[in-house]
Amino acid sequence: MLEYPSISQYLCDNEGDNLWSADNQQERLVRIGWILGFVDGEGCFSVGFVRQAGRTNRQGYKTGYQVSHEFAVTQGARSVSCLHELCEFFGVGQVLVNRRNDNHTENLYRYVVRRRTDLLETVIPFFQQYPLRSSKRVDFSKFVQCVQLVALGRHLTREGLIEIAQIAETMNRRKSRTELIRILRDYTPDIRDIG
Amino acid sequence: MLEYPSISQYLCDNEGDNLWSADNQQERLVRIGWILGFVDGEGCFSVGFVRQAGRTNRQGYKTGYQVSHEFAVTQGARSVSCLHELCEFFGVGQVLVNRRNDNHTENLYRYVVRRRTDLLETVIPFFQQYPLRSSKRVDFSKFVQCVQLVALGRHLTREGLIEIAQIAETMNRRKSRTELIRILRDYTPDIRDIG
Repeated sequence: MLEYPSISQYLCDNEGDNLWSADNQQERLVRIGWILGFVDGEGCFSVGFVRQAGRTNRQGYKTGYQVSHEFAVTQGARSVSCLHELCEFFGVGQVLVNRRNDNHTENLYRYVVRRRTDLLETVIPFFQQYPLRSSKRVDFSKFVQCVQLVALGRHLTREGLIEIAQIAETMNRRKSRTELIRILRDYTPDIRDIG
Repeated sequence: MLEYPSISQYLCDNEGDNLWSADNQQERLVRIGWILGFVDGEGCFSVGFVRQAGRTNRQGYKTGYQVSHEFAVTQGARSVSCLHELCEFFGVGQVLVNRRNDNHTENLYRYVVRRRTDLLETVIPFFQQYPLRSSKRVDFSKFVQCVQLVALGRHLTREGLIEIAQIAETMNRRKSRTELIRILRDYTPDIRDIG
């Protein structure tokens, strides 16, 4: 069971912030609301599976798949300051650039948190204390389930990996893990469970 | 010059709201922040021009063009409650449905405020008091200029319409009013100015 930090953690961190001139409690509450609304609009909680067939002798890769978990918010270059704002607020993660070589007029930037402890100790508790309002609330809840299963080591067994993949395939829109689940369930009989 | 309502207007309206359980000042401030963040992510301030060549005898159409101004936030059906939340918060505008007949899995909904008085008296003052953080702040500022020019009746003259079109063509991304400005400036010498 996760422990949630108190509201005061979010209200008192980042004292040096000047983008928001957060010099009083009112502005801090508006800021918390802004984070929520912006993530409701632009955020994405996702779980991915990367085939690592050649590395099954390494810890964490025994099933032949690595599970990744990511909280990300994407913006064009003109609004990159919003991503730095998120990064400063949470105090974890980083802002990465996706250089655009197509005909778009600006680079895309992503605020990304991938490290499990950062997700479990900072990002997830925040959105549990301040629930999202959009349909992303449902995706977030599934994301939490997946990250918690990984934290319990369930991704190291085929059954656990299938369980995570089954949750992940219902997250976000137009994604399907059916193929992955099929492969895990039926087509890799030599996967060595280490539950 | 516009008069801005005090913060208390936003803090005290919508007493009947139960979606947010806004039973105290803290939650109201978080709610204001949420509105800001959500609009930073999903909102759009736009100015449009509709050719009304056949209606030049009617007031407001003398230049042959009608100017429209719109604040809109779009969401899929699963998050339509967020749009109702905006509608309730501002107390103006409406939630409209765009039925999807293509291969998308859900209808799109739009919270839309188009009426000039609603924009001038409610929407614009809110975002002046609580500035947006993304690049939409710049678009908002241009939007305000355009709506104020329309409120002054400048859209009823060709020069005013060109001025509005020149501001509008720099708003949002990948839009150009160059063709409209060219038409207004050079190709409709019989437009009757009524400045």
